[in-house]
Amino acid sequence: MDERIESYEEPHLGAVIPLDVRDNGQGLEPLLELVSEDMNAINRIILDKAVSDVEMIPELAHHLIDSGGKRLRPMLAIAAAKLCGYQGNGHIRTASAVEFMHTATLLHDDVVDESGTRRGRKTARMIWGNQASVLVGDFLLGQAFKMFVDVGSMPVLRIMSNAAATIAEGEVMQLAAAKNTATTEDDYLAIINAKTAALFTAAAESGAALAGRPAEQQSALRSYGKNLGLAFQLVDDALDYSGDSARLGKSVGDDFREGKITLPLILSFRRGTSDERQFWNRTIADGDIRDGDLEHAIALMRRHKALEATFERARSYGAIARDALAIFPASREKEALADVITFCISRSH
Amino acid sequence: MDERIESYEEPHLGAVIPLDVRDNGQGLEPLLELVSEDMNAINRIILDKAVSDVEMIPELAHHLIDSGGKRLRPMLAIAAAKLCGYQGNGHIRTASAVEFMHTATLLHDDVVDESGTRRGRKTARMIWGNQASVLVGDFLLGQAFKMFVDVGSMPVLRIMSNAAATIAEGEVMQLAAAKNTATTEDDYLAIINAKTAALFTAAAESGAALAGRPAEQQSALRSYGKNLGLAFQLVDDALDYSGDSARLGKSVGDDFREGKITLPLILSFRRGTSDERQFWNRTIADGDIRDGDLEHAIALMRRHKALEATFERARSYGAIARDALAIFPASREKEALADVITFCISRSH
Repeated sequence: MDERIESYEEPHLGAVIPLDVRDNGQGLEPLLELVSEDMNAINRIILDKAVSDVEMIPELAHHLIDSGGKRLRPMLAIAAAKLCGYQGNGHIRTASAVEFMHTATLLHDDVVDESGTRRGRKTARMIWGNQASVLVGDFLLGQAFKMFVDVGSMPVLRIMSNAAATIAEGEVMQLAAAKNTATTEDDYLAIINAKTAALFTAAAESGAALAGRPAEQQSALRSYGKNLGLAFQLVDDALDYSGDSARLGKSVGDDFREGKITLPLILSFRRGTSDERQFWNRTIADGDIRDGDLEHAIALMRRHKALEATFERARSYGAIARDALAIFPASREKEALADVITFCISRSH
Repeated sequence: MDERIESYEEPHLGAVIPLDVRDNGQGLEPLLELVSEDMNAINRIILDKAVSDVEMIPELAHHLIDSGGKRLRPMLAIAAAKLCGYQGNGHIRTASAVEFMHTATLLHDDVVDESGTRRGRKTARMIWGNQASVLVGDFLLGQAFKMFVDVGSMPVLRIMSNAAATIAEGEVMQLAAAKNTATTEDDYLAIINAKTAALFTAAAESGAALAGRPAEQQSALRSYGKNLGLAFQLVDDALDYSGDSARLGKSVGDDFREGKITLPLILSFRRGTSDERQFWNRTIADGDIRDGDLEHAIALMRRHKALEATFERARSYGAIARDALAIFPASREKEALADVITFCISRSH
């Protein structure tokens, strides 16, 4: 669920090459341009709906809202609505509410993970405490549903309420899998499909639902959102072992220290020797982490090409996302949505 | 948000007189009879919707769902729908979802209050941890919204999304007021109006909304629910200093130990001498609680008739709730809803 706009270079840890030099694509630029006017409206609504007479609510909400997230999910909702030729203005409110859902999840996530920093700043829980983070998360989720109701589309409400339950289910699955080195790649995929890809899916699908497009277009956008979300999370999880801390806004190795089971670890464990598995069991299952263990973990991942394989999986889901868009005729919107895939993947090379 | 079916006798702490002897009314019986068939259906839906492939979810959800709560809120939703002559079956699902919202709130509440017991059992957080309690609460809230969407009534969705945001707002207000002895009775009323009465209001109003009744009936049920909820919480807060621990399912003095600001404390602080205010500031504001302090606190409350006054306020809101029902013609449903007021108040004498 973490977000990092980051480039990655395999051989030299910490050597960061700017995105625009390496990805040979347009990155997020076409999307940003496409949605810029709507995003201004969304930013106003977000500020407006985080208001409450209860002082702590806007303070805490703004801390996270203003912290420089990309707003990738609302941008997807807007672009998908435009791709489908939607003419109303329900997409603005839908996209704003999607960002609120995401923000609520981040607040609860940081409590569950006991995280200290996010996007390079102290987490809300470090400033206002776990209690306030839980409750303000609940408030933002309530506000999100009020906004979906304001949009007045039952199909969108159905999509979003499903996503809310699925995201929480994914988070519980992740919690249950924590420290369990026997977790399979399939288990992991089920987790990231629920905790991350579900909201990408819902954001993309909402565009087709609002525009009342036929089922095949709706499911095409669903497939696009899902596979983009999977690719996004895979790259995120690889960067946790290979990115640049300053630019990540969190430290390399956070997942390792938390005993979070992600694909680089799953592959290294499975591809490793029995000695290596003992190392993973001591550090991850038993949580007995000593000086030099993170460096050793990264070395094992390199030895077994686990990071490479994780990025490769991401590219593969990215390709599925790209093909899902194929049924739509060529358009600026289609191009921009395809470039988002490139952007998410390009964080990896 | 705590629930206790409890009788109360002012002069002798711990001397419990059974409800049926003292309240001279029918208590919950007429309501239970009125809704019994629908409640069977609701109990089935509740079990059904707490299901998930993620093992921890039904385990944790059932711990609370099966723990013998009264299901007062869903019963209100059913009775209100019947009062309004609603002929469909959307009230069943609405009522089930209301109970899920309530359960989700309890899970998060117990995390925020660091509670050890609820309804005489260990809280979920003591068994599965705070993290799982937060996430399963989120899941139940998501499931609740899925159910409201299934009902398909936009007015009900509006009522419930408003309630969700308001409840969270109330919880944040309560957190912000914690340990603050300067909290006024008005502040306190705003808190319990949001954190408790909002869901009673929504449950009662949903009946009129489903039945498509005119605005005056909808607002009558809103007023009934709100004032019943206020009365309920006032009695609950008085019982925390005067009830019988075994029957409360939690210990007398929990609010005192947590530094929670409720009306008995507000009145005692305001009616007290400056020495007494120093006592409240030491125990509540500074959290410096010593042996005998709870007994002294209760003695101060008795001296200033703070518990009596709290029960008196509850009776006064109960009277407003009763008058709110007046516009409805006489019926078994109206009678049962009026008896709920008696029941909630009668926990106090």
